[in-house]
Amino acid sequence: MKVFTEAVTASATLTAYIQDRSDELSNATVRPAMLVLPGGGYAFCSDREAEPIALAYLAEGFNAFVLRYAVGPDAPWEQSFADGRAGLAWVREHAVELDIDPTKVAVVGFSAGGHLATSLGTASDDRPDALVLGYPVTLAEFGPVMGKEVPDTPAAVTKDTPPTFLFSTYADALVPIRNSLAFLTALAEHEVPFESHIYVVGAHGLSLAKPLTANGQGAMTDDVVAQWLPDSVRFLHRVFGDFAVDGPAATFQDLTARRQPGLDMPLRNLLEDARAVAVVEAHLPGVTTGLRQNPIALGFSLREVAKHTPDFADPETLAALEADLVALNG
Amino acid sequence: MKVFTEAVTASATLTAYIQDRSDELSNATVRPAMLVLPGGGYAFCSDREAEPIALAYLAEGFNAFVLRYAVGPDAPWEQSFADGRAGLAWVREHAVELDIDPTKVAVVGFSAGGHLATSLGTASDDRPDALVLGYPVTLAEFGPVMGKEVPDTPAAVTKDTPPTFLFSTYADALVPIRNSLAFLTALAEHEVPFESHIYVVGAHGLSLAKPLTANGQGAMTDDVVAQWLPDSVRFLHRVFGDFAVDGPAATFQDLTARRQPGLDMPLRNLLEDARAVAVVEAHLPGVTTGLRQNPIALGFSLREVAKHTPDFADPETLAALEADLVALNG
Amino acid sequence: MKVFTEAVTASATLTAYIQDRSDELSNATVRPAMLVLPGGGYAFCSDREAEPIALAYLAEGFNAFVLRYAVGPDAPWEQSFADGRAGLAWVREHAVELDIDPTKVAVVGFSAGGHLATSLGTASDDRPDALVLGYPVTLAEFGPVMGKEVPDTPAAVTKDTPPTFLFSTYADALVPIRNSLAFLTALAEHEVPFESHIYVVGAHGLSLAKPLTANGQGAMTDDVVAQWLPDSVRFLHRVFGDFAVDGPAATFQDLTARRQPGLDMPLRNLLEDARAVAVVEAHLPGVTTGLRQNPIALGFSLREVAKHTPDFADPETLAALEADLVALNG
Amino acid sequence: MKVFTEAVTASATLTAYIQDRSDELSNATVRPAMLVLPGGGYAFCSDREAEPIALAYLAEGFNAFVLRYAVGPDAPWEQSFADGRAGLAWVREHAVELDIDPTKVAVVGFSAGGHLATSLGTASDDRPDALVLGYPVTLAEFGPVMGKEVPDTPAAVTKDTPPTFLFSTYADALVPIRNSLAFLTALAEHEVPFESHIYVVGAHGLSLAKPLTANGQGAMTDDVVAQWLPDSVRFLHRVFGDFAVDGPAATFQDLTARRQPGLDMPLRNLLEDARAVAVVEAHLPGVTTGLRQNPIALGFSLREVAKHTPDFADPETLAALEADLVALNG
Repeated sequence: MKVFTEAVTASATLTAYIQDRSDELSNATVRPAMLVLPGGGYAFCSDREAEPIALAYLAEGFNAFVLRYAVGPDAPWEQSFADGRAGLAWVREHAVELDIDPTKVAVVGFSAGGHLATSLGTASDDRPDALVLGYPVTLAEFGPVMGKEVPDTPAAVTKDTPPTFLFSTYADALVPIRNSLAFLTALAEHEVPFESHIYVVGAHGLSLAKPLTANGQGAMTDDVVAQWLPDSVRFLHRVFGDFAVDGPAATFQDLTARRQPGLDMPLRNLLEDARAVAVVEAHLPGVTTGLRQNPIALGFSLREVAKHTPDFADPETLAALEADLVALNG
Repeated sequence: MKVFTEAVTASATLTAYIQDRSDELSNATVRPAMLVLPGGGYAFCSDREAEPIALAYLAEGFNAFVLRYAVGPDAPWEQSFADGRAGLAWVREHAVELDIDPTKVAVVGFSAGGHLATSLGTASDDRPDALVLGYPVTLAEFGPVMGKEVPDTPAAVTKDTPPTFLFSTYADALVPIRNSLAFLTALAEHEVPFESHIYVVGAHGLSLAKPLTANGQGAMTDDVVAQWLPDSVRFLHRVFGDFAVDGPAATFQDLTARRQPGLDMPLRNLLEDARAVAVVEAHLPGVTTGLRQNPIALGFSLREVAKHTPDFADPETLAALEADLVALNG
Repeated sequence: MKVFTEAVTASATLTAYIQDRSDELSNATVRPAMLVLPGGGYAFCSDREAEPIALAYLAEGFNAFVLRYAVGPDAPWEQSFADGRAGLAWVREHAVELDIDPTKVAVVGFSAGGHLATSLGTASDDRPDALVLGYPVTLAEFGPVMGKEVPDTPAAVTKDTPPTFLFSTYADALVPIRNSLAFLTALAEHEVPFESHIYVVGAHGLSLAKPLTANGQGAMTDDVVAQWLPDSVRFLHRVFGDFAVDGPAATFQDLTARRQPGLDMPLRNLLEDARAVAVVEAHLPGVTTGLRQNPIALGFSLREVAKHTPDFADPETLAALEADLVALNG
Repeated sequence: MKVFTEAVTASATLTAYIQDRSDELSNATVRPAMLVLPGGGYAFCSDREAEPIALAYLAEGFNAFVLRYAVGPDAPWEQSFADGRAGLAWVREHAVELDIDPTKVAVVGFSAGGHLATSLGTASDDRPDALVLGYPVTLAEFGPVMGKEVPDTPAAVTKDTPPTFLFSTYADALVPIRNSLAFLTALAEHEVPFESHIYVVGAHGLSLAKPLTANGQGAMTDDVVAQWLPDSVRFLHRVFGDFAVDGPAATFQDLTARRQPGLDMPLRNLLEDARAVAVVEAHLPGVTTGLRQNPIALGFSLREVAKHTPDFADPETLAALEADLVALNG
């Protein structure tokens, strides 16, 4: 993995976390991306909602980015928003070289960072492909609490706002829950698909809601709320699709097939059955001797050996062999 | 985060993933460590069991290390083992400077890497503080399959072998399940605590059992087996303790307290109740005017404001105020 | 368990599922209750949302009731509502004799049954102690779809509406999601605590969202939505409290104590340590002989044996014994 | 549901829990069955491992049975075993009339009940179709602790022993963990598929490991161990198959199809698009007027209306209509 930091505007830096490529990982060059917008009331960018969040999505196969945008009394909201746009644009521009699928760039924002994320999802012409919002500020009425004038993002929702995952807590004493409900209501009115989990208990600013982001405060942990992270990953898999795989996962029925003579029984077991050995030798003379001497083959079945060994057996021979082996189960 | 690679012997490299410190993360300098030993039959070190595993534990607050140890026909087992010891020793030596609690260094190994991990947990004088084993090889009888002579690690278990978490699948066609059962039986005989999850279905080499490590093969995914990673983290929390926090998580009952006049009701609500305002003014003349003008205070309760504002109210006044407010609830 | 059906009005029947008492179950006479209101558009009461729901809560320790209320073109909403009130009243009246804590009577309703549940939680003078709502109808505007005139329940929410758990799906093509959002918004306005899970995918009428309630339709299953049932139980535990227990759950550290000589080591192990045996004999002459002959005692520790055996040892002797045993650990 | 108790031998009673049939539940007549064998050291049958276990499987769609078999000093093991056989035989004989699939009769046993379950799975000629074992006794050496002579069931395992799910705890101070490991090792030797979860912490006798079965003791609860019940259900689904469903679960992509003009867009939305209305009228003159007047239809799509309404449109017309609607999406 490589980790590096770029200045994307005079007031914003982007820290990139890019996983290594590997010939053993077919998905390594087409990863989804997650751009993390920490909260902090537009007064600071909280470390509790920065690197730990990037690492959580990295572990799920995303390449990740943390944007530290303009904050503080001298930065009007427009500057924070411009920084957000610049961060998203940078990720899109460098997507291919950083092994990212450019159609799968999501943004996650917390609290004021959630306000910035909803701003990108509504007011911007380059919208993220999905939003993840943690206890977001969305209402202009909350601006004075932060000492800023900020837009009302529910009012700016359109049918082009991206699919959204939102979590927050009813008990949030700092940012009233109507910030969440107003945004969801606007999404529903414009037929924008969303998933939302509003937990009853939990303070503002839970981040991952685990001890690792709690900064030593028990009140910043909650086993139930901690479920939001895997839930958001599952939501993004639904929207983006997960990494492509061929063929199904294994089943119990595959196991049943392995327990009786046939092409799927491991050689370790098949070669202990004298009748099966006779059948194999009838179709493929001499082959069992070689197989017995090859310890690594014993865990595999004839079907697997045939698949991976050129010229092991032609398809007709294999079909006839299978029929005769299965007949032993009679 | 910083990522760097060191040569720890002539044949081994260690890649370190070290998270950033932060004044907002009290745990940042006392992290547990995870040393990752990829599998590959002592013939190679699989990327599928390297960086993705390190990232999975990083996301849970560990600092992580991937050891690429001596493999291949020219490296006898003793060289791989020496590399494993060198990797573990390097982590212990650099623990404090790399923000690691030196009493919490765990090792996770897969397949042949699991054999190396059990070797460190049994034959070594510098043992890991916990083991995590994924579909491990443990029996000398499996050496010929890998073209190596390797020790029997169940036979080497003693009461000093560290607490162990093991997962594997009954259906593993390559490494027979008796490799797992023999090691568990040895742990039980020597009173070494362990947790074990043997799933019925699933091929050898599942890694995280998710599409992200499946290299495009559906057979390398399994929703059930994928539970091993969070289960192993929970096991390590039990053995090591999780990051320390003060005070309990929030409860529903806290919420009830907030719904009626008293020191725990948010000012936003308390100041709407004329009787409550009168009570507050009786004890703290003039204070409600100031509180109303401070938008950030409205989400907090009098108890929280008093705690964070020097000279807001002395304890006796606060106690008398609380009694009178609670009396309003009839 | 006993199962019986009562007529509670001329148009309503209540089927009760009451678990057996037992001296081995301290909670058996103070169970919470769940009253199930099936959906069916006020046209019928769906079996898919009746007994399977009762069984789901029974398994979590509730006593459960299914109310089949007046439905169909001849039954105005007022009659259905009267039936709902009668059902709830019947449960409250018979609470003590049916081993129910009368302060913990929850109601779960689905679709039109959710409308009836919100009606009980708003318009009624005998309100449930908690509500669970599945893809509820709440808006008067939906009445015509059901061929009924029904009240708007969000408009009737007050601060006395009980704590509410709500789940639904954005994709519900039959009952628009604004039915859920309007009710949640009303709860927030009146400071009524709630938890809400709105999943993005899933048809109307999922019930438990498992094959067992799918009536053979794959579209009536969803692994993610199926999480609502355990989530609702956890919510009810937060509101009501779970069954009371004394003392903590066991920890890994208890296990550590058992691994070294002391009062917590199982006798099976302690008696294998000659030094420990000598210490025990010094304080309690002759006792180890008796303990060895009592196979059932070998799994227990001296502390457990002393606790359950009158006159085994006085507290002072036990304390002195413990000190000497622990001293063996160097 | 009906609940009734039968005497199946002079010393054994069977309590049956049989769910109601319903035309709305296609699975109601082909349920799997679970026969519950409580533990109690062959001295009593514990209520903590009786009805609560039956209810847990009932909630997952099984019909369930609790067998209270011969126990106590006057009942030799052979009598308990005969009672177990009689209970299983009774369930098989009455399977069809009790809506049970006779090929899916599982047995769950705890502690000594687990010994009885393994006896049925090994020594009996009428074997269960699957075993679930909770902290089982399996070794003859444990007989004296219970004051009984009992057979060694690992020694009796054959290839015909049914697939087995086993959970227990390393920390079990009463029944040594080797009882579990010996049985698993025997299953592996005879190629009998199994799944096993051995948790590190937790006392003997946890039952469901939840407060509801803890009889007031915190030490009888464990959040982690409580996972065994849903894990066992998932195992049984793998072995038996879950209830059959047709068609897939809904996906996010279905939702996308609903958001643009076509046969899958809900009429509520389609009829708001003047161009779409014109297209529908061109193919099906007059139809939109009728649809607008039918409030229940508005949640459905044209494809759904056509499917459920005979003579709504012939396939050719529908295909042409779909092509023209989709063309509107540009």
